[in-house]
Amino acid sequence: MSNAVPVLREPDALPQPYLLFLGDTTEPGYAKTAFGLRDWAGERCVGEYACAGASVSTGLPAMTPAQARLAGARAMVIGVANPGGRIPGAWLPLLIEALQAGLDLVGGMHARLSGIESLRNVALAHGRRLIDVREPPPGLPVASGRKRSGKRLLTVGTDCALGKKYTALALARAFRSRGLDADFRASGQTGILIAGEGIPMDAVVADFAAGAAELLSPDAEPGHWDVIEGQGSLSHPAYAGVSLALLHGSQPDVVVVCHAHGREHVLGHPHYRLPTLEDTIDLALRLGSRTNPAIRCAGVSLNTAGLDEAEAQRAMGEIAARLGLHVADPMRGGEPFARLVDACLA
Amino acid sequence: MSNAVPVLREPDALPQPYLLFLGDTTEPGYAKTAFGLRDWAGERCVGEYACAGASVSTGLPAMTPAQARLAGARAMVIGVANPGGRIPGAWLPLLIEALQAGLDLVGGMHARLSGIESLRNVALAHGRRLIDVREPPPGLPVASGRKRSGKRLLTVGTDCALGKKYTALALARAFRSRGLDADFRASGQTGILIAGEGIPMDAVVADFAAGAAELLSPDAEPGHWDVIEGQGSLSHPAYAGVSLALLHGSQPDVVVVCHAHGREHVLGHPHYRLPTLEDTIDLALRLGSRTNPAIRCAGVSLNTAGLDEAEAQRAMGEIAARLGLHVADPMRGGEPFARLVDACLA
Repeated sequence: MSNAVPVLREPDALPQPYLLFLGDTTEPGYAKTAFGLRDWAGERCVGEYACAGASVSTGLPAMTPAQARLAGARAMVIGVANPGGRIPGAWLPLLIEALQAGLDLVGGMHARLSGIESLRNVALAHGRRLIDVREPPPGLPVASGRKRSGKRLLTVGTDCALGKKYTALALARAFRSRGLDADFRASGQTGILIAGEGIPMDAVVADFAAGAAELLSPDAEPGHWDVIEGQGSLSHPAYAGVSLALLHGSQPDVVVVCHAHGREHVLGHPHYRLPTLEDTIDLALRLGSRTNPAIRCAGVSLNTAGLDEAEAQRAMGEIAARLGLHVADPMRGGEPFARLVDACLA
Repeated sequence: MSNAVPVLREPDALPQPYLLFLGDTTEPGYAKTAFGLRDWAGERCVGEYACAGASVSTGLPAMTPAQARLAGARAMVIGVANPGGRIPGAWLPLLIEALQAGLDLVGGMHARLSGIESLRNVALAHGRRLIDVREPPPGLPVASGRKRSGKRLLTVGTDCALGKKYTALALARAFRSRGLDADFRASGQTGILIAGEGIPMDAVVADFAAGAAELLSPDAEPGHWDVIEGQGSLSHPAYAGVSLALLHGSQPDVVVVCHAHGREHVLGHPHYRLPTLEDTIDLALRLGSRTNPAIRCAGVSLNTAGLDEAEAQRAMGEIAARLGLHVADPMRGGEPFARLVDACLA
C-alpha cells in the first residue's frame, strides 16, 4: 500500500532538526524515544509538542508546529510509544497540523504512518513526507563477506534492552572527543532517529540481514571508526539470528559486551537464564572471528542504574577482577569509562 | 500489490497433484525443482509439460494442462529456475493455458507469479490461484522459546546446497518405513513444493525467523518425529543468522550434519574456507543447547556424488573413524544409512 503514494521513507538522512511529539502520554516510560533524542541529539531538537492533558516533558521549549517551523524544524518525530504501538485517534489532528505547518512526520512504531489514509491525503496535498524508520531500504544485498576498510566496534549484549545503544552512543562521542573520526551506526528505530540514518535490522528479511549490516558500516578511511549499535543477544531464544547476522556483517575489530547489573533472566522469557559474561564474550569472539579473525573484546559496559555510587563501583570492580577486563558504566563516565575507551582504541 | 487481488498464497497445504512445468529449459541443472518433485513426491505428479524446444525431461508422461486436469491434477508447478529467477515471456501462453484449463499455478522463484498482470487477470477471470511459495504466511509470531512436545531432528550443514533437504527427506522416509509417525518439515521453496506445505525461512523478516521455525514444527504426540530441512550454515558469512534462528526455533533433539565430500570453500565465497565437521558439530550443539539442552549429534550425511562406490566407502570410513560417529550417504542407502537411522532413533 505504501508503494502507491509518493510519501515514502527515503533511504538517506532524515530531515532535521526535529520537533518532538509527546502525544497524550502521562507515563515517562513510554517517552524513551523523546528522552533519547533529547540526550543524544539535543542540538537537533528545537522543542516539544503534546496533546492537552499530556504530563510528560523533555524539558525542551513547548512550541506549536508553526513555531517550530519558524525555528528551523523540518520534521516532527513521534517521540512516544504506547502499548501496542498504535497511533491513537486523538493524535491525528496534531499530526495533521504538523504536516500543514510544513513539517514532515517521522515515526518508528510498528504502526506505519503511511498506513493511515487521512495522513497520506494531507501529506500529498501539502507535499510533505510520512517517514517510517522501521521500513528497511529497498534492494538490500546478500552479504559478500568481503573485508572492508576502516575500523569497527560493535556493542553486544547478554540480553535485549540493557544499554547497547547508549553504550555505542557514549563510545562514539568519547572517540570524537579524543579527536578521532567516528560515526555512530544505528541498527534500531530510536538509534536511527538519533543518528538521522541507519537500518532497522529487526525489520530486514532474514536472507539479507547480514547484507544490511555490511551496508550499515561501509568502507572508510583506515583511521575511521564506526561504532555500531548492537541488537538482541547471541543467546536470545527469539532474536539470536538477528544478532548473529549483525555480528557477521559488521565484521567488528572490537566488541564491548553490555550487561545490566542484577538481571538474571532474559527479559520476557523468565524460563531462560541469562548467559554469563564469560560465555557471551567467548561466543561473540568465536562467531565474530568468522568474518574478522582479529576480533577482540575491549571490556564490559555495565548498566548500574538503581545502584548508588559505592555499590556501582563495587559491582564494576568485582566483574573487572573476575574477567580481567575493563568495566565501566558509560552513564556514570569518569575514570573507569576513560579506561574502557583506552582499551577500545589500544 | 499482491494484497489487492484474491489470488494469494494460502498458508495451508498446496493444491496437489501437480503437473510439472519445464519451461524452455535445455540445461538439466535448471530443473532441480522438477527432479526433486519426481524423486520425492512422484506419487503426486501426474505428468510434465514444456515449451516447444525444451529438451529436459523428468521421464513422467508428457501431457497438456487439459489432459492433466482430467488425470486429477489441481495445479501446475514451475519446476525450473532460470538465471535471475525471472519468468520469460515465452512461458506466459502456457501458464495462461494452465489457468484456463482449471489448474492453479504454483511457483517458488524470486519473481512472483502474482506480480504479472496478465496472469492475475486470467486467474481472477477463471477463479484460479497464483501461489508463490516464497511468500511467508502472515502474522508470524516472535519466538517464545517454550519447549514443545514430540521429537525433532534438524539437518545442519557445513555449507549451502550440499544435501540438507535430501537428507531430511530420506530420514523421514526411513523413519516411516520403520513404522514411526514422522513428517518432513520444509523450510525452503523446493521442500515446500515437495511437502505441499512449509515456511520459506529465507523470506521471513529477521525478528520473526525463530518464531517461524517454532510454527514449522508444532506440538506433537510424544512418539512423533518432525524431520526438519536445514538452511544455510552457522558459519556462512551471509546466511548464518537464518541458520541460527532455525536451530533455536526448531529445538532439535537430534542434528545430522551434512557435508559434501571434497568441498573446501563456501559456495560463492571462495575466500571463506568451509568449517571443519568437528567445528560444525560443536557449534550446532553449543548453540542448539540454548533451546534444547538435550540436543545431540547422531552422525554425518556425506554427499559422495561423483565418487565411485569404493571411493565413497573409503571417504565415509575415514570420517567415521576420525569423528567416532556414523557416516552415510542417504542417496547410496545401504547398511551405513541404516546405522545412521539407528543412531538418530537411539
